[in-house]
Amino acid sequence: MTLSPPPSSFYQTDVVIIGAGPVGLFAIFECGMLKLKTHVIDALETVGGQCSALYPEKPIYDIPAHPAIEAGQLIERLTEQARPFDPVYHLNQQVVRLKRDDDRAWLVTTSKGTTIKASAVIVAAGGGAFGPNRPPLDNLHLYEQSSVHYYVRNKAHFKGKKVVIAGGGDSAVDWALALHDIAQSVSLVHRRHKFRAAPESLDRLEKLANDGKISLITPYQLSGLEGADGQLEAVRVADLDQNEKTIEADCLLPFFGLSMELGPIQEWGLGLDKNHIAVQSHNMSTTEEGIFAIGDICTYPGKLKLILCGFSEAAFAAHGACRIIRPDELLHFEYSTSKGVP
Amino acid sequence: MTLSPPPSSFYQTDVVIIGAGPVGLFAIFECGMLKLKTHVIDALETVGGQCSALYPEKPIYDIPAHPAIEAGQLIERLTEQARPFDPVYHLNQQVVRLKRDDDRAWLVTTSKGTTIKASAVIVAAGGGAFGPNRPPLDNLHLYEQSSVHYYVRNKAHFKGKKVVIAGGGDSAVDWALALHDIAQSVSLVHRRHKFRAAPESLDRLEKLANDGKISLITPYQLSGLEGADGQLEAVRVADLDQNEKTIEADCLLPFFGLSMELGPIQEWGLGLDKNHIAVQSHNMSTTEEGIFAIGDICTYPGKLKLILCGFSEAAFAAHGACRIIRPDELLHFEYSTSKGVP
Repeated sequence: MTLSPPPSSFYQTDVVIIGAGPVGLFAIFECGMLKLKTHVIDALETVGGQCSALYPEKPIYDIPAHPAIEAGQLIERLTEQARPFDPVYHLNQQVVRLKRDDDRAWLVTTSKGTTIKASAVIVAAGGGAFGPNRPPLDNLHLYEQSSVHYYVRNKAHFKGKKVVIAGGGDSAVDWALALHDIAQSVSLVHRRHKFRAAPESLDRLEKLANDGKISLITPYQLSGLEGADGQLEAVRVADLDQNEKTIEADCLLPFFGLSMELGPIQEWGLGLDKNHIAVQSHNMSTTEEGIFAIGDICTYPGKLKLILCGFSEAAFAAHGACRIIRPDELLHFEYSTSKGVP
Repeated sequence: MTLSPPPSSFYQTDVVIIGAGPVGLFAIFECGMLKLKTHVIDALETVGGQCSALYPEKPIYDIPAHPAIEAGQLIERLTEQARPFDPVYHLNQQVVRLKRDDDRAWLVTTSKGTTIKASAVIVAAGGGAFGPNRPPLDNLHLYEQSSVHYYVRNKAHFKGKKVVIAGGGDSAVDWALALHDIAQSVSLVHRRHKFRAAPESLDRLEKLANDGKISLITPYQLSGLEGADGQLEAVRVADLDQNEKTIEADCLLPFFGLSMELGPIQEWGLGLDKNHIAVQSHNMSTTEEGIFAIGDICTYPGKLKLILCGFSEAAFAAHGACRIIRPDELLHFEYSTSKGVP
């Protein structure tokens, strides 16, 4: 996969695809077959959407000519199929603005400040953008660029730090285990005494807690953050009776799972109907010229929410985009093969 | 694959699928997912349509999640995916009649006299039925059930026979090589001196011809058949100057390739428009209730002749058929998932 470019950049391309789930990935291929260059934006750190984030090992039975394929494998195959067309992926960022440029191109801006100018936009955003569930703390946003991390990109970043991890599942437990010998200290905050993780991991956690290598703070929930200028200094936690205590902390890693929200798409004026974008079924066009919608986010009479139908929709949208970008060529194509009349 | 049942039989099922190409095969699966039983009819001896008959080893690049798959493998995978739903295949026979039964079911009759009663019919006939190219001989039809064969089903059938093979490609050459030591004699008729076949096969052919084991009759074309009561006695051939000669023959095997013709479909009143059946794109329904058309034979605004779009059309048609066969159940399904209103 092409590496993500640095943030706050400006690009120009034929088509921006919003959403790198299976249908968005196949749209790269279909655009590529029509010689349209693509940039792809996704809120997750990796391509694949729900298939990668929620059920990579779940077998899917209704992908044509795959009697059974795990969701993760499906994404691998689709990524491989798209690769020859050199898509540029902008991951771990959400589209925050979509507006028309003067010359009827579109400007797509992401949460990382990247702006892409494109002749067409294909929205393949599924049920919306996936993102980490954020703890409900008033001043959380002050620390999110610096001290609060929802993913661990590089373990070395936590070397010698006082780390507070919050959550009770596999991610929280596994990162506590992985960071305890790098960090100065690791505290694991969970609202119950019991953690939900692999038995072997739980055994290791118990041993490290008994040896004083990891502090288990249970049953406690996060209740506040203290610090200055974006640098966290302490995390406040409270038990069920609202008794608070304070833990020194350089950084906080909340692992409360992922959730999906339509987010800014709702403000793009695409005529949303119950969280779906209505399209013309013959080319997946929306009410805005140059913007197409495919996959679970789109709706039209008879729409079936099946990945295999999304693949077909990707083909229609790519042809629709091509008609906008190279109107003369497509007319010629139509004359020689379908219409038969000059 | 389920074996073909004996001819001149009567069956009853939910859906008859006409055409066992990739799109027809996937329609079995989609019907099966909706608990609809299927019978499948195809003019060829094997499933797969063009993929099997014309280019089984050609790689296809635009099947989603198959960066490259040979056409023959595609058919294998689709057949495997359909198998759990126990489709009944009626191969090597063409649909000759499609008429409405009293109770609004459909009766589908094939060239072998098989009749199938079904609530819905999905036409996935591609560009039409494939069949062998027949040599233009006046009395050919008198011998086609007995002495003229377009396929070799059983080599033993030709034991001790005087065999005339016509054609210049791989099939003609390979069957000459395969039958020369079983048959009493093998004559190979071709309008040129040069044959188009694998070099190794051509070497063997030349050697056997030099040894008098195979008679090469070149450059000659078939010009007539002689015999009585369906039993061939001789084949007449003519050179480019219309000089004729006669070859004793018990049977003739013409190998002139396959061609495609729409055939009886044109007489079914389905509103054909330039050899295509117009459908409603939301459910692939035709002008006749209960009859659906999918794949290359159907047309609607924006139609793309891609196998991957045909897969999606198969899903739409299966849902359309289900709505006819179990209208109450489907309404319920819609209420609970899409409409949200009782």
